[in-house]
Amino acid sequence: MKELTNRQYYLASRPTGKPDAANVPVRDVPVAAPASGEVVLRNMYISLDPAIRGWMGDDPNYIEPITLGEAVRSSVIGRVVESNSPDYAVGDVAMSLGGWEQYTTAHAVTLNKLDENAGIPLSMFMGVLGPTGLTAYFGLLEVGKPKAGETVLVSAAAGAVGSVVGQIAKMKGCRVVGMAGSDEKCAWIKDDLGFDDVINYKTCGDYEKAIRKACPEGVDIYFDNVGGDIMDAALNCLNKFARVAVCGWISTYNVPNAPGPSNLWQLVAESVTMQGFTLLDYLDRFEEGIGQLAEWLMAGAITSREEIVDGLDNVLPTFLKLFDGSNTGKLLIRIPED
Amino acid sequence: MKELTNRQYYLASRPTGKPDAANVPVRDVPVAAPASGEVVLRNMYISLDPAIRGWMGDDPNYIEPITLGEAVRSSVIGRVVESNSPDYAVGDVAMSLGGWEQYTTAHAVTLNKLDENAGIPLSMFMGVLGPTGLTAYFGLLEVGKPKAGETVLVSAAAGAVGSVVGQIAKMKGCRVVGMAGSDEKCAWIKDDLGFDDVINYKTCGDYEKAIRKACPEGVDIYFDNVGGDIMDAALNCLNKFARVAVCGWISTYNVPNAPGPSNLWQLVAESVTMQGFTLLDYLDRFEEGIGQLAEWLMAGAITSREEIVDGLDNVLPTFLKLFDGSNTGKLLIRIPED
Repeated sequence: MKELTNRQYYLASRPTGKPDAANVPVRDVPVAAPASGEVVLRNMYISLDPAIRGWMGDDPNYIEPITLGEAVRSSVIGRVVESNSPDYAVGDVAMSLGGWEQYTTAHAVTLNKLDENAGIPLSMFMGVLGPTGLTAYFGLLEVGKPKAGETVLVSAAAGAVGSVVGQIAKMKGCRVVGMAGSDEKCAWIKDDLGFDDVINYKTCGDYEKAIRKACPEGVDIYFDNVGGDIMDAALNCLNKFARVAVCGWISTYNVPNAPGPSNLWQLVAESVTMQGFTLLDYLDRFEEGIGQLAEWLMAGAITSREEIVDGLDNVLPTFLKLFDGSNTGKLLIRIPED
Repeated sequence: MKELTNRQYYLASRPTGKPDAANVPVRDVPVAAPASGEVVLRNMYISLDPAIRGWMGDDPNYIEPITLGEAVRSSVIGRVVESNSPDYAVGDVAMSLGGWEQYTTAHAVTLNKLDENAGIPLSMFMGVLGPTGLTAYFGLLEVGKPKAGETVLVSAAAGAVGSVVGQIAKMKGCRVVGMAGSDEKCAWIKDDLGFDDVINYKTCGDYEKAIRKACPEGVDIYFDNVGGDIMDAALNCLNKFARVAVCGWISTYNVPNAPGPSNLWQLVAESVTMQGFTLLDYLDRFEEGIGQLAEWLMAGAITSREEIVDGLDNVLPTFLKLFDGSNTGKLLIRIPED
């Protein structure tokens, strides 16, 4: 069997602001034969998520930081090209924790086998039927605890998580207001996804005024993907007993020593519950979540959108689109099969 | 009937730092005859609580700020000296929302009648059997949700709320660590109240190191009365799924534009729930709470301590003791009866 060469974008140094090519250079390394129980995947999709920026740092975080010298960590979907496991045959397709690389070697027990003939595009298992969809599902339902008639405000509402949060909240009978960074995104979430109102945060001026106008009854649930000034403004618009579901704070990830919120006192003033969460908190309920999301998707009750960029060598500039808000929906790299 | 003169400390201007005599001057005004349904109380006790500092500001808060020109608002216990209500006779004793004043006029329906012959010192109805005891009870049990074996960290642990929080947490089978501002206070909560460990925050040096040492298994519940740097340090010591019960942030009340926490990301990193609350959230359960606290008190399961200062004219300097941490337990002004 011919020796495989793995092209990898690896973490050479920890970025302080936006990661650049010096932090994440490329190299070509040979792929070792899989050890007992392992398989080698030839990656087809690489998932680009804001959390990856956190793993590049050395702060304590909810999973281990990436070790310097290793490929940048991300979820991947690949096809088995070598197997040393009875559970996987060459040609099978699986999702794995992998990296910004052409080949990922992983133990079979850590993989999720996917059926490429199930009529669902594989990429959806990284989005609406995968981590981002599940994050929206558990974050809104378990942390936000929406009740019919309540107002839900979602930041980064045209993103992979926010767009699903808003659609689920609509199904729960809520008034849903989304904040996004372009008129095109705002039109998508309002006209196609059914959000009740939208705020283009790049053109709206004063955030707090814009939120109050779009949420005349106040905010009962703030689903926060961005942090920073938008969170500060949202905190000031919360109703009594509001919930803040803290999914992520993408506005701060490239800002060293970002200041904390200036008005956290709102938690006491309005008896607010602010709760951070990660998807891993709901590991034992993934099957339920994926089942429900798949049902909604098939029924047309939720719509997903993906932005797929071809070519591993585009991985870093594509990743950075998350931080200037220029992507819509779930962002992926595809490495076309030969 | 001779006309009564009411000595009042009133809010002349809103303080920016510590309130002083220019913000809170004194005046003598006549007491008007009570309108229909009203009674006039001759105050015996005035409750001094950190929340009063918030009401002196003009920030939105959980109750209305004090109107400039009005007596500083506080809870009072007084004896009825004039009554225009069938429900109160002269000589009855009641608790009321009142002010830093000798006489409070209030509508009878807003009063709580107290039985001065029940064998319970009246002052306790402002402390362990009143607002501070109830705040500890609901804050720990409903917001903190303690489970046996968990570690509970309490700041301002020798205060009226913190000292009760720690004792209830011990009854629930928790390891309880208190932070307080003097060796004497630390000795009291450890030796007399049964806290497992104590930290004198004025002498311990690095807060985070001190907390980690006193909480070798990490912190599952942080009951926060102080905010600021101590909260920042506590956030870094939280376990997965920890709860932060935000009762108050006394360290910040006299600091204009106090910075927010620098490490609120811990909420996401450890899937933490941070919840603000006020006693009013549990209005419909006061009876339950007072009943339980009274039972514990009678059984000797909880101990309370009061610091009672005689004389209305001492009200402002006594109030300021809350902010330099020089009081222990529940702080009150007594106006001895003639």
